[in-house]
Amino acid sequence: MGRQLFDMVTARRLVLDLLKPYDPDVVTTAEAVADIDGVDGVNVVLAENEEEVQNVKMTVEGDPIRVEAVYETIEDLGAAVHSIDEAACGERLVEQSKTPQD
Amino acid sequence: MGRQLFDMVTARRLVLDLLKPYDPDVVTTAEAVADIDGVDGVNVVLAENEEEVQNVKMTVEGDPIRVEAVYETIEDLGAAVHSIDEAACGERLVEQSKTPQD
Amino acid sequence: MGRQLFDMVTARRLVLDLLKPYDPDVVTTAEAVADIDGVDGVNVVLAENEEEVQNVKMTVEGDPIRVEAVYETIEDLGAAVHSIDEAACGERLVEQSKTPQD
Amino acid sequence: MGRQLFDMVTARRLVLDLLKPYDPDVVTTAEAVADIDGVDGVNVVLAENEEEVQNVKMTVEGDPIRVEAVYETIEDLGAAVHSIDEAACGERLVEQSKTPQD
Amino acid sequence: MGRQLFDMVTARRLVLDLLKPYDPDVVTTAEAVADIDGVDGVNVVLAENEEEVQNVKMTVEGDPIRVEAVYETIEDLGAAVHSIDEAACGERLVEQSKTPQD
Amino acid sequence: MGRQLFDMVTARRLVLDLLKPYDPDVVTTAEAVADIDGVDGVNVVLAENEEEVQNVKMTVEGDPIRVEAVYETIEDLGAAVHSIDEAACGERLVEQSKTPQD
Amino acid sequence: MGRQLFDMVTARRLVLDLLKPYDPDVVTTAEAVADIDGVDGVNVVLAENEEEVQNVKMTVEGDPIRVEAVYETIEDLGAAVHSIDEAACGERLVEQSKTPQD
Repeated sequence: MGRQLFDMVTARRLVLDLLKPYDPDVVTTAEAVADIDGVDGVNVVLAENEEEVQNVKMTVEGDPIRVEAVYETIEDLGAAVHSIDEAACGERLVEQSKTPQD
Repeated sequence: MGRQLFDMVTARRLVLDLLKPYDPDVVTTAEAVADIDGVDGVNVVLAENEEEVQNVKMTVEGDPIRVEAVYETIEDLGAAVHSIDEAACGERLVEQSKTPQD
Repeated sequence: MGRQLFDMVTARRLVLDLLKPYDPDVVTTAEAVADIDGVDGVNVVLAENEEEVQNVKMTVEGDPIRVEAVYETIEDLGAAVHSIDEAACGERLVEQSKTPQD
Repeated sequence: MGRQLFDMVTARRLVLDLLKPYDPDVVTTAEAVADIDGVDGVNVVLAENEEEVQNVKMTVEGDPIRVEAVYETIEDLGAAVHSIDEAACGERLVEQSKTPQD
Repeated sequence: MGRQLFDMVTARRLVLDLLKPYDPDVVTTAEAVADIDGVDGVNVVLAENEEEVQNVKMTVEGDPIRVEAVYETIEDLGAAVHSIDEAACGERLVEQSKTPQD
Repeated sequence: MGRQLFDMVTARRLVLDLLKPYDPDVVTTAEAVADIDGVDGVNVVLAENEEEVQNVKMTVEGDPIRVEAVYETIEDLGAAVHSIDEAACGERLVEQSKTPQD
Repeated sequence: MGRQLFDMVTARRLVLDLLKPYDPDVVTTAEAVADIDGVDGVNVVLAENEEEVQNVKMTVEGDPIRVEAVYETIEDLGAAVHSIDEAACGERLVEQSKTPQD
């Protein structure tokens, strides 16, 4: 397997930039990840429809999210994680703080 | 039927980009989808009035929304789903998280 | 009557783009619609003062708003609905969800 | 009297674009309208200082605001209503809803 | 006295555009006005440092603010009110309502 | 001492534009001021890293903040107050009110 | 050790601009810091993917955060702190206050 494994890594929120085939659709993709044990909910928004694939942003929240299970489910759907745009871990969900450097 | 079927797929929120004929109007369209079992409410905003059709954004929230029933109702109204712009699934409604990559 | 009829169609919120004569004024127009049975409140903001008419945005909220009654009242005031910019229906008031496609 | 009369018209919020002389000042003007029976409070912000007059935006909230009394008080202060920018009427205060058409 | 007198005029909020000498400083200026009977609190932000003077925006809130006492205190500090940018009066504090005309 | 003294002046919030050496770091600087009696908390954000110094914005909140103690602590750290960007005084913390003049 | 030591310095929030290798990933990095005693939660967002490294913004909140422990953990992951963009210390978490000078 070329991809990095996440073993026991867990999170409270993940924001993943995904490239997915048109089939299955966005709802089926969101529901599949939402069904993973420990996931409270999933939000997927369409960023861009390209010729062969869709670029979507997936926000996953849970307590705890088992990151490896999320990756496996995404791969089973034929999609790929382009980048991890946000990860939040710990006893409570902490939001990013905006500073003048942003 | 050319369209993909959603079988038992359910969601908590759907945002659909629709192309609809002028008749029926926006309110009748919203009410028809709002009457579907499991749908709590529907919000439709006008994006653009084109010559033959209206481009509208429909936000559907429910617990659970039966996606196939929504598609069927929309088709019965003579409208078509241009794209699924957002889907939220799971035990609770999760919002998209804004990151520097947006 | 050239206009479409709304029969028993009801909503929780309507946003209407109206063209109205200067007389009656904005307050009288808002109050007339607010007095309709089922309407909780009306907000009218001035978009533009044109030579003969005013372009205003009317937000109506109620439970339920009888859409046909709203149209009749607006016509009685000598005004016309230019477009329905938003309609929200169902058991609870759902707001539009913002997505990257907006 | 050239102006339209508001008889028994009432509202929950009025936003008025006013032209007022420098004397009386903004506070005295706000207080005079705030003292009208049925008015809960008045907010006046300075839009522009012109040579002879001040252009201000007056937000009035009450339950109910007697519109005719507000106009009379404003005229007694030597000011004039340039336009009614917002009127909200009904059993509860409804805010304008933002739509893509704004 | 060239300035207008405010006699018994009271308000719940005043926003004053002030020109003040560098001495006393911004904190001393804010505290002096905050000590006036009826004033709950004062917020002063620096708009611009000019050669001889500072241009600051002073927000005063109280129940009730005696406007004449505020002006006298400001003058005692060697500062001058350039303009009254906001005045809110009445039984409760009303905020300005944003409309398309802003 | 060239600087102005603040004797018994107190505030509920101070926003200070500081020029500080790289050593001590931002956290040590924030903590030193946070330890002053009467200070509830301190927030320091980096505005700009210059060659010799850092330009930072320090927000101090407390009840009451003894301004002279804050200045002394800042000087002990080798830093200097470039300007007081905000001061809030009084029985409760009042925020600046935004007006069209901003 | 070239870096400055933080000894007993503690904070309630730290925002760190980090340069990190691609491995370990963002989630593993966030989780490692979240596991430090006194840290409530960590949020890491991707600022930029460069050729060899990732530029990320890490927001850490806790009561208290032992800054030295955070730095050590970050170094153990092969990452480096490029700058401290925000530090908040004291009995309660104070947010930066926005002023016209920003």
